[in-house]
Formats: sequence, structure tokens, C-alpha cells
Amino acid sequence: MTSAYQKMTDAELDAALADLERQAADLRALDLRLDMARGKPSPEQTALSKPMLDLLTSASDLSDQGVDADNYGAPDGLPSARALAAELLGVDPANVSVIGSSSLNLMYDCVENGYVHGIAGERPWCQQGTVKFLCPAPGYDRHFTVTESFGIENVPVPMREDGPDMDVVREYVEKDAQVKGIWCVPKYANPTGVTYSDEVVCAFAALRPAAPDFRIYWDNAYAVHTFRGEGDELLNIFDVLSEQGKKNLVYEFASTAKVTFPSSGMAWVTASPDDMAELRRSFSAMRVSPEKISQLAHVRFLRDADGVREHMRRHAEIVAPRFALVQEKLSAGLADLDVATWTDPNGGYFVSFEGPEGSAKAIVALTAELGVKLTGAGAPWPYGSDPRDTNIRIAPTYPTLEELGQALDVFVVAVKLVAARLAKAERA
Amino acid sequence: MTSAYQKMTDAELDAALADLERQAADLRALDLRLDMARGKPSPEQTALSKPMLDLLTSASDLSDQGVDADNYGAPDGLPSARALAAELLGVDPANVSVIGSSSLNLMYDCVENGYVHGIAGERPWCQQGTVKFLCPAPGYDRHFTVTESFGIENVPVPMREDGPDMDVVREYVEKDAQVKGIWCVPKYANPTGVTYSDEVVCAFAALRPAAPDFRIYWDNAYAVHTFRGEGDELLNIFDVLSEQGKKNLVYEFASTAKVTFPSSGMAWVTASPDDMAELRRSFSAMRVSPEKISQLAHVRFLRDADGVREHMRRHAEIVAPRFALVQEKLSAGLADLDVATWTDPNGGYFVSFEGPEGSAKAIVALTAELGVKLTGAGAPWPYGSDPRDTNIRIAPTYPTLEELGQALDVFVVAVKLVAARLAKAERA
Repeated sequence: MTSAYQKMTDAELDAALADLERQAADLRALDLRLDMARGKPSPEQTALSKPMLDLLTSASDLSDQGVDADNYGAPDGLPSARALAAELLGVDPANVSVIGSSSLNLMYDCVENGYVHGIAGERPWCQQGTVKFLCPAPGYDRHFTVTESFGIENVPVPMREDGPDMDVVREYVEKDAQVKGIWCVPKYANPTGVTYSDEVVCAFAALRPAAPDFRIYWDNAYAVHTFRGEGDELLNIFDVLSEQGKKNLVYEFASTAKVTFPSSGMAWVTASPDDMAELRRSFSAMRVSPEKISQLAHVRFLRDADGVREHMRRHAEIVAPRFALVQEKLSAGLADLDVATWTDPNGGYFVSFEGPEGSAKAIVALTAELGVKLTGAGAPWPYGSDPRDTNIRIAPTYPTLEELGQALDVFVVAVKLVAARLAKAERA
Repeated sequence: MTSAYQKMTDAELDAALADLERQAADLRALDLRLDMARGKPSPEQTALSKPMLDLLTSASDLSDQGVDADNYGAPDGLPSARALAAELLGVDPANVSVIGSSSLNLMYDCVENGYVHGIAGERPWCQQGTVKFLCPAPGYDRHFTVTESFGIENVPVPMREDGPDMDVVREYVEKDAQVKGIWCVPKYANPTGVTYSDEVVCAFAALRPAAPDFRIYWDNAYAVHTFRGEGDELLNIFDVLSEQGKKNLVYEFASTAKVTFPSSGMAWVTASPDDMAELRRSFSAMRVSPEKISQLAHVRFLRDADGVREHMRRHAEIVAPRFALVQEKLSAGLADLDVATWTDPNGGYFVSFEGPEGSAKAIVALTAELGVKLTGAGAPWPYGSDPRDTNIRIAPTYPTLEELGQALDVFVVAVKLVAARLAKAERA
């Protein structure tokens, strides 16, 4: 892609640069304090769940199908909570454990189980030398931090428009027994917004891992987070596994983090019966029982999968205009310049932006200098290292529409100025 | 101790046995289903906290000192929650992290930090061969399960009337660099009810461990759980450390598990600034942020340490008659027979019972056969192995007073019958 700045004459480019520097100076003078870094719901969104707080009172029956929510017990969660979690993922409640409020914490515990205890009778990873996890990139930085924290080698795998590059994944998984897992966000992936195609999901289910203790860490964080139209359809990987007569390959995770209150909801894991039995043995040393009062409030508020979808439509009404504004501002500001591409997802929390090679760190730094905070460039790569320095994650949900508009105006100027400076530098 | 049965003539003993077998048969015929196994609050107790559920409603301000409880953030917990937790333990809120509802989970995470990452710059335990934890016994079985789950060797240490035998502790800790920790319940210990004396606390603070990565795991689970009189006083070990000019030796844990709703409360850890910085680095990979809605409800309900103490007095009104009934029934049934001793604590959740050598498993089995479930004999020892088979943990809080009375009657008959059978067997 040759940018408009690269095509300019020297005089045109100098004029454009002078103009952009002036625009930047004007923005700097506004002393803005805006934030597009955080993938968190806005206060308007969390307010949607405040009525949940009215549902449990001192007069409430705190039992759920014979289980007391207000005392120890039920290590896999309340029956109704397991049923709701299972319905949302299309799996058997018997294979679901609802524990805590953080699915990341459950993922950590699953990795820890492999590292400390070993999976499927294999030796613990801490006794297997350097083990590796595949990291489709750009991806979710906190996934990569989990495995990095165990000294596991994070190996980047290219992300394509329909999911990870499965030829690369297959090559690693089927030939290298040190590869023990892959991090996946299969629907509205963080940060690309990609939903894995049926072909990709089937290719995952068809993997024949070299390592018996390899698992797919299937973080379905945005399973119900559509904000446009009917949204994307993701194949149920457990159905595909079942059709292929396979088992013991996938741990799937989800939570209500961006459905109700982030960090104060319910999180769950599901896997094959064998895998769940093993995980439960491991979990049983970690905790006495999960937070069931919160689970009870959640199931009385959300009721069932239809209740969740209805609730998510109200989120969509708040979120959709923000994502539309991102498309509008980026298109208006950048479409004619051939300097960048960006994703246009139907759900999730992010837009993934690709600038000119070698521009991302400079754009993020300049944007910050102009008063708008973005996620650090490189964060969506293992070890924070974006090989081409092109990718920027835009998180439009938290600011107000007005703030978001201002922030995007700043971002557009920064992208143009950095692209123009790069064009100028090429000629030096 | 020579029991009344051992002192009987053969004829007297046979008559006593026949009488006890008849009593057992009568009890068996009642087909009771009672439970004295579980250290959990009764429904009457958990009901004390139901008014907490009225405090947060859809109209509530969900912020706490500028921190939003209903969104991500505040990885160490809400400011008010940290202040309450710190006040209860007499430490600086800056050194407190309030995370999740399970202090056992925090203990697990601290052990995991040592095993996976290493403490104070030392190599991770998984690379140090067999490491050991000291386990004052009888003690809390779930502590021992945590370290056992990592393959750490649990080493029993005798419990005395004022705490662990500190000569034994000192010998291990100061001479064996493979000893990395000791499990302590310093107040109303599980199951003995012992509160560590000032001398014992000072001896702990004075330890000079051979291993730089040795820490004391100080589980102050029953810090405020007095049910009789003014209760016991426990020295603040951090004050003692400070007087001795020492640091980086203690992780202290507590929770509201038996203050409000078990498993749906708040749990916390405190340590030196250096240790907390290290733990926070480790925790940061595990979770995004803690359950702050629950924290907000708790601080609005409990307010401060005085509020907690007031609330615990209401617990005491429910719990005290149960513990009094244990003393009454055991004294009435067993005091004249010289077959057993038992503790008479001022707080906590347990009475620790010592029967004749080689009797505990038989008593628990016979009691179960007569319809009363007890904690498995041996559970309070590492690997479930009580060397003399004498100890039984009695948990009187959960049953109603009437059920408890029946259960104790059954227990007393079982103790007498097993003691008489043992006396008979000696003569064979």
C-alpha cells in the first residue's frame, strides 16, 4: 500500500506536514484527558444490571434446587447457575463448573494444573523442560501473560480473517510434543473482532496433537456480545468433536464479565467428562466452594439464555453507536489516504487498526502526547512485540460518545502526522 | 490414664458391655441422620447477615472512595474493604489485598507463588527437590491438602496447650533449608481451639529460618470468633516482628467466611511491603480484579471492626449454647470414666476430643453406624494419619441444639462402648 503522503511531491508533503503539525499543536493546546485503552463497559452499560441488586433481599429464599447459596458447599456452583452457563455454550450442565467471577482465573488454574500436576497422566510441565503455547496474534495480552508467568514459551501464530492460520497451528501441534496449548478467542476475537469460520473450528477439532497433554484453551469471552444485526455464528466445538468421535481436546471458558458487572459476576469452565474430573480434583485443593450468593442473584436476574440475549440487546443499543462512530471517523479521516486498514466487527469490544509499517508505537506515543490514552502498541503480541509495529487496539466502549469522537479526531491526526513523517523520513 | 473399664472385674466389664450394646441397639433403631462433621455456621447464623442483602439496590451509589465497585479495577480491593480488613488485623491497609471470598484460595496462591515463581529471589520450589512444610497437628486438613497437592512433604509438629511445640519448630526451621513454611491457625486453632500464647507468638517472630524463602502461613481464620466472655487475646505478630526489627517472615490471612456468608464474603492477605509487592506481581497474572460488589455490601453492612465485633456477639449467642451443651454432655457422660479428654475453647468452631489410644477410627465408625456423621478420624493429621488414633474433631455449630444433644448422646455411648471393647480386648 503506497500512502497518499508517499505519492506527494516534496513540496506537497512539506505543506501537509506543516498543516498536520499545526492541527496537532491545536489539539495539544486543548489539554485533553481521554482514554480509548480499556476494554471495559461504560457506566451506562453496568447500570443495565443494577436492577439485579433488588432481587435478593433479607426476605429472599437463598436456596437453589435444594442447595443453600449462603453457606459452604456445591463446589461446581449452584444448579441453576450451571444450567444457565451450559445453555449459553450448548453443553451438558454436568460438564460445567461455575467458580468465581473471573474466567481468566479459571484459565490460570487450568494452566497451573498442567504445570504443577500434569494433564491426562502426563508428567507436570514443570518437569518437561521448555513447553510452548501457541498465541494467535494479535490476541489477548492477558492470555499471553498467564503462560509467560509460568515460563512457558509463547509462540505467535498469524491471525487471518477467519481465525488463526490453521496450517501453522497444525504443523506445530501435530509435530511438536512440547506444544501444550493454544489460546483462542473464537468469537469476536480480542482485538480483531474475527469470529472463527466453520472451517477453522472443524480444523481445530480435527487436530491430532503430538502431546497427549495438549489442550485448546477456548475463551468464549464474547459468546453473546453481538452489537450489530444477528451477529456472527460460531460452531459449537464440542458438537464438532462429538461428530468426529473425539474428546479430551478443549477447555472452554466464559463469564458474565461484560454482561453484568465486570469482576463481580460468574465465570465457568466446561470440558469433556474426563477433563472435568481431572480439573475438579485440582480445583478441590484450591477452594472450599464458590461465591453462590452472586450466582443466585445472576440466575434470578438473567434467568436463561433468552434472558441473557435480551439483556445483551440493551448493551448493543449503547455499544453500537460507539463502534459506528469509530468506522465513521476513521473512514472520514483516513479512507482516501491509503495509510491504514481496520476491522469492522459485529460484536465484541475492540477494533483492530493496522497503520503503516513501523508506525504503531509512534502513533500511540503521539496520541498520548495529545491527551488520548491507547492500549500500548505491541500489547496484543507475545512479549509485547509486534514484529511489524503496525497494530493498534482501539477500545471504544468506555468513553462517552462525545469523548470518543474527540479521541478519534486526535487519533486520526496522529495517524496522518506519523504517516507523513514516515514518508518524509523515507526521502531523507 | 487407666479407664473405669480397665479397672472393672471381668464380670463387671461384661455387664457394662452388655448394657452398652443394648444402648447402642436402641439408638440404632432410632435410625438417626445427624451430622457433627461440618465446621459451618447454622442457618440461624447465616440469617444474621441477610440484612446485608437490603443495603445495595438499583438506587445505590456503587462507588467507594472514588473506585467503582461495578467495573474492572482496584486489584487490591475497595479502599473501604482494605481499611476494614486492616483494622481487624491491626495492620496498614497499604499492605492488605482483599481478593475473592476464600482465604484458602489466597493461601493456595501464595504456596503456588513459591512453587512456580520462587520467593525473595530464590529458585522456585519445583526446582529445589523435595521441600517441606511444618504442620502442627491436630490441625486443619485443608491446609495440609494444599501443600500435599504440590507434592510438598507435610511434616507433623506436636500441638501443645499454648500452640505448636516451638522447640521442634525451631529445630526444623533453623536447621533445614528445605523447610519452606509452617501452617498456623493462631487463634482458636482448628480443631483444638488453642490460642497461641504470647511466648509462642514471640518465638515465631524470633525464628531465624535456614531458608530465605521460608514464611509463616498465619491463618487468622477465627480472629473475631469469640463465643465466651472476653475471649482470648492473640499478640499481633507484625507488631512483634516490628519490635524485633524483623520483616518478610509472615503471610497473614483472614476472611469473613464465618462472619457473613461462607464462600460469599471477602478474604484477604497481609504481609510486609516487600512480600506484598512480590505477591501482587504473582497475583496480577491470575486475575483482572476482585469481586468488589460483594466487598461494597460487606463494608456497608459491617462498617468497621466495632461493627464486626457487634455482629459476632450475635453469632456468639447462637454458638455458645451449642458449645456449652458439648461440655455438659461429655462431662455428664464421660467425666467419671477416665476414658477421654477434650478441649473447652472460648471461640472458634471445634472441640478436639482425645479418646483411648487406638479408639478414634472405631468411635467415628460406630457413631456413623448409629446415625451420626463425624469428621473422619485422622483428618486433622498430615496424610490423614493420626499416629495414636486418639483424636476426633467435634463440630457443634451446624445442627440445632436438639439435634446436637441427640448426636452427643450417641457419641457418648459410642465412646464408652469402644473403650469397654478395648478393655475387653486387652484381657483376651
